Amino acid sequence: MNPAGDFIERHLNLHMVGLIDIRKPLPGSERLHRHRFWQINLACAGEIGLWSQHTRQRFCAGDLLVVPPGAPHYLDYSRCGVYRGLTFKFDLTADHTPPDDEFLLVRGDAASRRLIAAVTELCRGFLPQALETPNREFNVPAGGMGHLPLEDMLWGVLRYYYLARAQHRSGGEIFFRLRELIARRNGAPVTVAELAAEAGYSTGHLRVLVRERTGEPTKTFIDKERIAIIRNHLKYTSLNMSELAARLGFCHLLYFNKFFRKYAGLSPLAYRKRCWQEE
Amino acid sequence: MNPAGDFIERHLNLHMVGLIDIRKPLPGSERLHRHRFWQINLACAGEIGLWSQHTRQRFCAGDLLVVPPGAPHYLDYSRCGVYRGLTFKFDLTADHTPPDDEFLLVRGDAASRRLIAAVTELCRGFLPQALETPNREFNVPAGGMGHLPLEDMLWGVLRYYYLARAQHRSGGEIFFRLRELIARRNGAPVTVAELAAEAGYSTGHLRVLVRERTGEPTKTFIDKERIAIIRNHLKYTSLNMSELAARLGFCHLLYFNKFFRKYAGLSPLAYRKRCWQEE
Repeated sequence: MNPAGDFIERHLNLHMVGLIDIRKPLPGSERLHRHRFWQINLACAGEIGLWSQHTRQRFCAGDLLVVPPGAPHYLDYSRCGVYRGLTFKFDLTADHTPPDDEFLLVRGDAASRRLIAAVTELCRGFLPQALETPNREFNVPAGGMGHLPLEDMLWGVLRYYYLARAQHRSGGEIFFRLRELIARRNGAPVTVAELAAEAGYSTGHLRVLVRERTGEPTKTFIDKERIAIIRNHLKYTSLNMSELAARLGFCHLLYFNKFFRKYAGLSPLAYRKRCWQEE
Repeated sequence: MNPAGDFIERHLNLHMVGLIDIRKPLPGSERLHRHRFWQINLACAGEIGLWSQHTRQRFCAGDLLVVPPGAPHYLDYSRCGVYRGLTFKFDLTADHTPPDDEFLLVRGDAASRRLIAAVTELCRGFLPQALETPNREFNVPAGGMGHLPLEDMLWGVLRYYYLARAQHRSGGEIFFRLRELIARRNGAPVTVAELAAEAGYSTGHLRVLVRERTGEPTKTFIDKERIAIIRNHLKYTSLNMSELAARLGFCHLLYFNKFFRKYAGLSPLAYRKRCWQEE
């Protein structure tokens, strides 16, 4: 019916957005509670108390909190000085079993601070009226469109922090990290010793890890990752071969050709031609 | 296998991110071309030329460009003074037929500017190395996790601007807008005359529009929208009935009860109890 049909499907229905802005301690009215919907809190400035069933922690600027359905929690404004934060209450449209019935507190780092800044920008751009009156929750129009980018962003927050945690537990995170360290070079060479140093392992430990996981020497693992990166450069950019070889750290086009052919089975130029012909 | 399995599924695979930062005109090397992947360009500052098959337009700070697969386009840096912008190249994981084989140029407004700021924050937080060297494209690690929030955000951009356009064509946008205008009051009353003025219609025209679409008087349409908002306040907040009635613009709790009961068939308190009991 709708030409954009496939694009409309939502992952989450955002119901309420609140900007909390407190300049002095508020007498406590809430207490430990749980609810059936999901909640995300982002701490923009200051700090408050955060109670779980057993402990009280600090919830500080840059931190983020994911409260899955059923998780007991209580944000305590009664002992804070200054606090500014965003609250989002939503349901998921598909049935995702939360990995835990406890909330997830993510401590602030450079990435989470940027994320909070990004979400704040989106609120200002797409739901400005939600921020007009602090300390009141704003009802998000059901079925509206204006907040779609914000919903997608929140889905990203949920996905990323839950996924990251799950990967961390399953041990897969180490491999993601190695791949990202190699990717940071953007295709330029990286030695086993450099990779080990950046990942915080001894070269010996790294070699064992990689051998266990891939059955191959670390050098081969690195080379194959580089080849994947180079394929992307060939497919998605229009740099000519000499420029590309130079950017990838090859001192001569011949070495670039040889390296690529060894793993990919054809020359870089032939690979690009094949990609482009397909189009 | 993975406890976060359902959360991992991706909508798009981001391959390349580039920060373009130009201080003086660059001699033209590109020309009109098309490719099989998707591309999004965000103009952060300055302006450049943008060619389609037939015309040249300006692509200015705050604008955004969606280039679906197959759409001829050409970003012309040869006549610009200063320009700074972000480029994203990606594939969709599911098969979405683009509504058009032409690119979509969205002119800058307050929302698009906030969106561009948000995407920039996400790049800085989750893919900082992509911004380190301007005018080179950075390969995003395939299967990596660090850029998931950015991918979700781009998906939101694509969805929102494609969806908005499609809705606009189908005429449904007017109704979304009316609902959003009502929602801005956060449950407080709005008269037919106010709604008409905010939407830019005469009250007569608004009445005809609403009657055609819903078969009901505009007052009933507004009231039902307000009831949906009030339901959310009852379900997702813990405000007591007097506070809530006051915030919703009722001068007495009795009127609030009567209004809610008329459409919902039970008292606000009974509705809240039912919501909370279910949990």
